[in-house]
Amino acid sequence: MLENLTHIDDATEALLTVFRRHASGVTVITLLDEASNPLGFTATSVTSLGTKPPLVSFNVASGSSSYAALEQCGFVAIHTLGEANVGLAQQMAGPADLRFALENWQRGAHDLAIFPEATSVLIGRIRQVIAVEKNAVVIVDVEKALVGDDQAGLLYRHRNYTATGDNLTNN
Amino acid sequence: MLENLTHIDDATEALLTVFRRHASGVTVITLLDEASNPLGFTATSVTSLGTKPPLVSFNVASGSSSYAALEQCGFVAIHTLGEANVGLAQQMAGPADLRFALENWQRGAHDLAIFPEATSVLIGRIRQVIAVEKNAVVIVDVEKALVGDDQAGLLYRHRNYTATGDNLTNN
Repeated sequence: MLENLTHIDDATEALLTVFRRHASGVTVITLLDEASNPLGFTATSVTSLGTKPPLVSFNVASGSSSYAALEQCGFVAIHTLGEANVGLAQQMAGPADLRFALENWQRGAHDLAIFPEATSVLIGRIRQVIAVEKNAVVIVDVEKALVGDDQAGLLYRHRNYTATGDNLTNN
Repeated sequence: MLENLTHIDDATEALLTVFRRHASGVTVITLLDEASNPLGFTATSVTSLGTKPPLVSFNVASGSSSYAALEQCGFVAIHTLGEANVGLAQQMAGPADLRFALENWQRGAHDLAIFPEATSVLIGRIRQVIAVEKNAVVIVDVEKALVGDDQAGLLYRHRNYTATGDNLTNN
């Protein structure tokens, strides 16, 4: 059976090929710099790290524009996105100086920038930033949430934004 | 604008509500116990942690049946799943003693159990297991991959398995 599979022996190419097939939920994370100006970025690495206590983790490159502020260990707002939020995902993955140039956000808990069009917003406090090579795993204690209307979820796969499709089970 | 959102002030309920809306790609991770018997589980927390060097992370509960073997820091096979693999996802999330009871796997690299029906398989070596409360973040060095035919991706959202749907961008 394994003979029918294509073997990729270069580790970087292996990673890239596999993750093109792996669908990831898209989020937008916002935080504040030292002068309380908003910073933020689009992230596909947000995942739960248990409920007792409620923790979330995400990964970030140490060269990113928000990394220094993450190390200050303040608060973050993690926005889950729906299929109507492709523009927001692109805005927050684009040039850093244009990410808050539109009037589609306002200040919320802890003065964080909140995008109300997101399907939900998790507010948390950074507990730990664990450096691993040129990246870091960020651990966040969940504090509370804001929840809007639901819709199909926004995914990133094969270098495109994609919507969630049909349910395959019925729980 | 924020006034129209529902506020959830209980941290655990906040986490659960937000992650029901967040779609996660579904994977199956296999490894070996001390006697080289296969262990494994379904995981929705696999994410890339950079390409130089190529690293992957996933989260696991410290009470899980595979946790002790993960701490031995051996090899893992991370399978990405497609919409045809709902049965495999359920098999590997079910009773631990039934997970390898079917003949739908075979030994591959490092004697790991490989499910050839997966859309791709990433082979890696555990670099670090970082305990955080009752869970751990596992960091894996990518070694190589096996790649099969592609299909719509398998997701977990709103407690159901779901397929990826329409592309919203065209890159």
